[in-house]
Amino acid sequence: MVRVGIVGGSGYGGVELLRLLLAHPQVEIGFVAGQRAAGDPIEQHFTHLRGWVDLSFCALDDARWDSVDLVIFAAPSGVAMQWAPVVLEAGARVIDLSGDFRLVDAQSFAHWYGCEHSAPALLQQAVYGLPELNRQAIVAAALVANPGCYPTAITLGFLPLLEAGIVDCTRLIADAKSGISGAGRNAHVHTQLSESADNFRAYAVAGHRHQPEIVQTLSHCTTDQIGLTFVPHLVPMIRGLHATLYAELSADIDPQALYERRFADEPFVDVMPAGTCPETRSVRGVNTCRIALQRLEQSNRLVILVVEDNLVKGAAGQAVQNMNIMFGLDERAGLNLIPLVP
Amino acid sequence: MVRVGIVGGSGYGGVELLRLLLAHPQVEIGFVAGQRAAGDPIEQHFTHLRGWVDLSFCALDDARWDSVDLVIFAAPSGVAMQWAPVVLEAGARVIDLSGDFRLVDAQSFAHWYGCEHSAPALLQQAVYGLPELNRQAIVAAALVANPGCYPTAITLGFLPLLEAGIVDCTRLIADAKSGISGAGRNAHVHTQLSESADNFRAYAVAGHRHQPEIVQTLSHCTTDQIGLTFVPHLVPMIRGLHATLYAELSADIDPQALYERRFADEPFVDVMPAGTCPETRSVRGVNTCRIALQRLEQSNRLVILVVEDNLVKGAAGQAVQNMNIMFGLDERAGLNLIPLVP
Amino acid sequence: MVRVGIVGGSGYGGVELLRLLLAHPQVEIGFVAGQRAAGDPIEQHFTHLRGWVDLSFCALDDARWDSVDLVIFAAPSGVAMQWAPVVLEAGARVIDLSGDFRLVDAQSFAHWYGCEHSAPALLQQAVYGLPELNRQAIVAAALVANPGCYPTAITLGFLPLLEAGIVDCTRLIADAKSGISGAGRNAHVHTQLSESADNFRAYAVAGHRHQPEIVQTLSHCTTDQIGLTFVPHLVPMIRGLHATLYAELSADIDPQALYERRFADEPFVDVMPAGTCPETRSVRGVNTCRIALQRLEQSNRLVILVVEDNLVKGAAGQAVQNMNIMFGLDERAGLNLIPLVP
Amino acid sequence: MVRVGIVGGSGYGGVELLRLLLAHPQVEIGFVAGQRAAGDPIEQHFTHLRGWVDLSFCALDDARWDSVDLVIFAAPSGVAMQWAPVVLEAGARVIDLSGDFRLVDAQSFAHWYGCEHSAPALLQQAVYGLPELNRQAIVAAALVANPGCYPTAITLGFLPLLEAGIVDCTRLIADAKSGISGAGRNAHVHTQLSESADNFRAYAVAGHRHQPEIVQTLSHCTTDQIGLTFVPHLVPMIRGLHATLYAELSADIDPQALYERRFADEPFVDVMPAGTCPETRSVRGVNTCRIALQRLEQSNRLVILVVEDNLVKGAAGQAVQNMNIMFGLDERAGLNLIPLVP
Repeated sequence: MVRVGIVGGSGYGGVELLRLLLAHPQVEIGFVAGQRAAGDPIEQHFTHLRGWVDLSFCALDDARWDSVDLVIFAAPSGVAMQWAPVVLEAGARVIDLSGDFRLVDAQSFAHWYGCEHSAPALLQQAVYGLPELNRQAIVAAALVANPGCYPTAITLGFLPLLEAGIVDCTRLIADAKSGISGAGRNAHVHTQLSESADNFRAYAVAGHRHQPEIVQTLSHCTTDQIGLTFVPHLVPMIRGLHATLYAELSADIDPQALYERRFADEPFVDVMPAGTCPETRSVRGVNTCRIALQRLEQSNRLVILVVEDNLVKGAAGQAVQNMNIMFGLDERAGLNLIPLVP
Repeated sequence: MVRVGIVGGSGYGGVELLRLLLAHPQVEIGFVAGQRAAGDPIEQHFTHLRGWVDLSFCALDDARWDSVDLVIFAAPSGVAMQWAPVVLEAGARVIDLSGDFRLVDAQSFAHWYGCEHSAPALLQQAVYGLPELNRQAIVAAALVANPGCYPTAITLGFLPLLEAGIVDCTRLIADAKSGISGAGRNAHVHTQLSESADNFRAYAVAGHRHQPEIVQTLSHCTTDQIGLTFVPHLVPMIRGLHATLYAELSADIDPQALYERRFADEPFVDVMPAGTCPETRSVRGVNTCRIALQRLEQSNRLVILVVEDNLVKGAAGQAVQNMNIMFGLDERAGLNLIPLVP
Repeated sequence: MVRVGIVGGSGYGGVELLRLLLAHPQVEIGFVAGQRAAGDPIEQHFTHLRGWVDLSFCALDDARWDSVDLVIFAAPSGVAMQWAPVVLEAGARVIDLSGDFRLVDAQSFAHWYGCEHSAPALLQQAVYGLPELNRQAIVAAALVANPGCYPTAITLGFLPLLEAGIVDCTRLIADAKSGISGAGRNAHVHTQLSESADNFRAYAVAGHRHQPEIVQTLSHCTTDQIGLTFVPHLVPMIRGLHATLYAELSADIDPQALYERRFADEPFVDVMPAGTCPETRSVRGVNTCRIALQRLEQSNRLVILVVEDNLVKGAAGQAVQNMNIMFGLDERAGLNLIPLVP
Repeated sequence: MVRVGIVGGSGYGGVELLRLLLAHPQVEIGFVAGQRAAGDPIEQHFTHLRGWVDLSFCALDDARWDSVDLVIFAAPSGVAMQWAPVVLEAGARVIDLSGDFRLVDAQSFAHWYGCEHSAPALLQQAVYGLPELNRQAIVAAALVANPGCYPTAITLGFLPLLEAGIVDCTRLIADAKSGISGAGRNAHVHTQLSESADNFRAYAVAGHRHQPEIVQTLSHCTTDQIGLTFVPHLVPMIRGLHATLYAELSADIDPQALYERRFADEPFVDVMPAGTCPETRSVRGVNTCRIALQRLEQSNRLVILVVEDNLVKGAAGQAVQNMNIMFGLDERAGLNLIPLVP
């Protein structure tokens, strides 16, 4: 049994962790900390968990860090970097769903997150929790930086091409579309149903925090300079993320075979038949990332279609996958789920 | 030309008034006051109005009340009762979309709105702006209380039965369903798309402010005691309101003929063929209220189906209709619109 | 291990059965018959099942009825009554999700389903599969008629009142709202997203097949005549069913205590705190039916709010629950699921 | 007064034409032909038009071509090429919303539309109805091929760059997203709300009919070879089309000024402030196409964001604009509409 504490339990990352961990056969929830909801029974905020959990949210100051093996931070940026040193000191390991430990460079962090990093020493120590890339390092990690939803899909989609060195790295384009839950459970005007339903738009074209995160990871896979154009869009749906990636091949290789080989042993990456179009609902509620390749006729252009559930493989599910790896459990434990369709 | 000032222009009532009044052939917009957005060009908040309006929002304190013939309040409850005396004093007439002047009784107001009324003297003076009931009084009114979205649909649906005295008034049931825009343009958690899409629920079953408003109006049409059960629900759609009304007939009369006769001359009430089911989108964007009757076989039960656009006949459109009546314009002016379907 | 054959696997009932049964620890899928899709691999039609099932749809004529313990029909009305005699003869038991065996009276069936019943002898033998009412009879049943989605919610909502004899049975009103998946997976114009999204309407007010089914069941619980007004509506959402029930109490009893007592031992009925409003998403993907009571002040009116997932407790999940009962398994087996929220 | 006949009135193109033409001050509807609905009153199929039109659909064989000045075909591909010769012979002019006359080359037509063209002689005669490019030719045209929804947005988005000769024409990428109404009003399984809501996917990546149409038009603006990658996607919304275009600039020019100049006199193209993100709802129901430019820092990459209403500027609205030009009316007549927001 792994004892887990959750911080930030009243957001979407937190409630999705609860969904996955309450049904996980080898996990016990130690506490769920949520600043604003402290003292309230969890089921009061989340009726759907009635009968599944009888805990109340606790304040962060009351969290018993030393009573758990692992603390998963599902809080807004800034919380994990403040508390992680305390948690690690208390002997628990840490997985952070926010961006606090994803960028290795403290200056880059300050630029993109608009504040100084309060625990820069931990930046070098943190392992970037993309199992398909860093599985070995995750096993021993004390602190795992769980990737963002866009970086997970886009990195997995480009990875085989970069590792094989058969792509023009200066001309990578990622046109990505996310369900509204990616914006979190906060009350904003623009994410109201009346504002965002029956509507579609791009945002943050000039610069999104996930851009340097993606470039940082891709740079580890090649010695070439990365030139990535990344445009995120908001889709009027709850869950799901679709990345449409455009690349120019620099060698005449069969990309389908390459991808199938690269991900053959990956439990949560499904390379679909060439020429198909994966849909986001085909991974609704599960940790699978599906990838399909479309080679354009008589050209060196490759279109890569990637779908994931932004709250699962793009957040809480990947955290559980990382936890399984860190604690020597079956990597699929608690994640052996069938998508909810329709 | 009627010169109109709008207060509360950054909410849904306000922006819908702008849509209707900017295209109204006999109206000129004098100012648009919006406290939070004061100073901002309107098109900055409402891109869809680019090219249609070059005004900026002004602060309420800067509004030139004496420069307009009419001020329409589309602000939250509390604003109109504070400013209406000033506006009337300045010589302009007033239409209020909020609930400030709908209840005749100041004590009832205090109970349902949770605060003392600041201009109780005006409560008696205000005319309830349901043209199908009060057209003559509206002509001369200085202050019109524009009905709420639920009261408009439910009152119109029950009206002919009560006026004809052929219904058990103690057993009226109104099961009403509203699109999310009815909750306003404020940032709430429960109206986020991720919370309210693919979801359906009732709310305020124990008591909704619109209940006493409906009962007050219906009571004017009968000497019987009104017993009304009213349950509102939230539908995962932007616009539209559907009221399903249940009544027990106390006389054997043909309700279809009764309704057709009652509304024969009404420009904005459409009595549909018996046995049909109106859909909310059939009035999307327009001021029409459609009503269909379903008499259950071998029984005295009548089901009345009513649809309206909650932002038009349920708010801004009805205000424009009232304005047309108040200023002697064609009642259809600016409201001669075709629904947007699909 | 229970070996199960599914008929009608390409509709929503069928694919939901696959979701539940593929993860059921004591079930083995024998075959999945689907007339139109016969020969196609299941994952070709349902990408989300990639990796979970490697069967192909078979034609009904090729189904090996004697190779399974149970056949679940998830086909349109007419299929089960044609094949059930063959299946029973072959020694397998039957659960039917369609309406073929729900009405006890063959004449009533002919009236509501528009054709003669082809196996009227089985009508008397079929057990109506509402476990909360008929658990003992289900244990031994060879043929279970799985209730419709509306009847499940409405019957469970009224049941305690009727059993206790404290309600005016002639004045029952059920205003019910269903997600679009209730209309099945067929291509209709009116269920296209462009027609049904951002739209709300009633349908079949004059008479819906589920009406006699509900009345038949409720009649078993009382000696009074049942007078039920039932109006179904279409909600622009995928899954979920909300019934708003109106009743007049004929005795001064605490309904909250009554309901809590009645359903105390039911694993799939959750009586919520008095005065709350359950939302459909709180049961998304699970077999739970949640009920909340709202007693109106100083009146004998009771409003009962009921939510269920129309494809789970309203169809496939209830079938699995019935199967568990029939085969002596834990009633919760394979149904111990956490709702997908958001 | 222009007398107009509509063919294919029961699809989305047709009903949108009715919405626009019934309110057009200089148009009279002569007939509305609809094969399947022939004989039915129009309001029977389109309740929202109750009170606006009392015509019935007629069969194509009964259409009085010589009674009108213009016939607008809003029928599926194949109908216009069959009937256009007859209509032209009868003395009426023609606008076709389908793809029948868009491709100049009959062989290319046969390849993309899967059948021989039945009136190849007319292909040369047809004028491609993109007013921003072909206004003069449209004035005198007898037969106008109204552009598709994707080609309209994508062509307008790339046009200034190609005309100015400052872009790498071999590396044009158009990642386009369309509301579901773009698939027409036919009953398909995949456009059901239960299949397409809360879902996102690409389609026709390997080849879409609009691809050669776009390339044909762009080729007229440059002597360079066009290399265009075009990937369409389905967005779970009713109306709206968003094209995200990627280009590499080959000269150091200010694109914002270029676009503003190019479209300065265009009544239906709105070049938005640099760095903004237009949303599809900002053109809901209107004929405007909004374009925003985002130049990526320290690079030659330009991202062009284009939105239009696929049923208006992408179909019926553009047809009305073409009609206005053809008949010497004010180009804005009948199209002076404010978007419906929210």
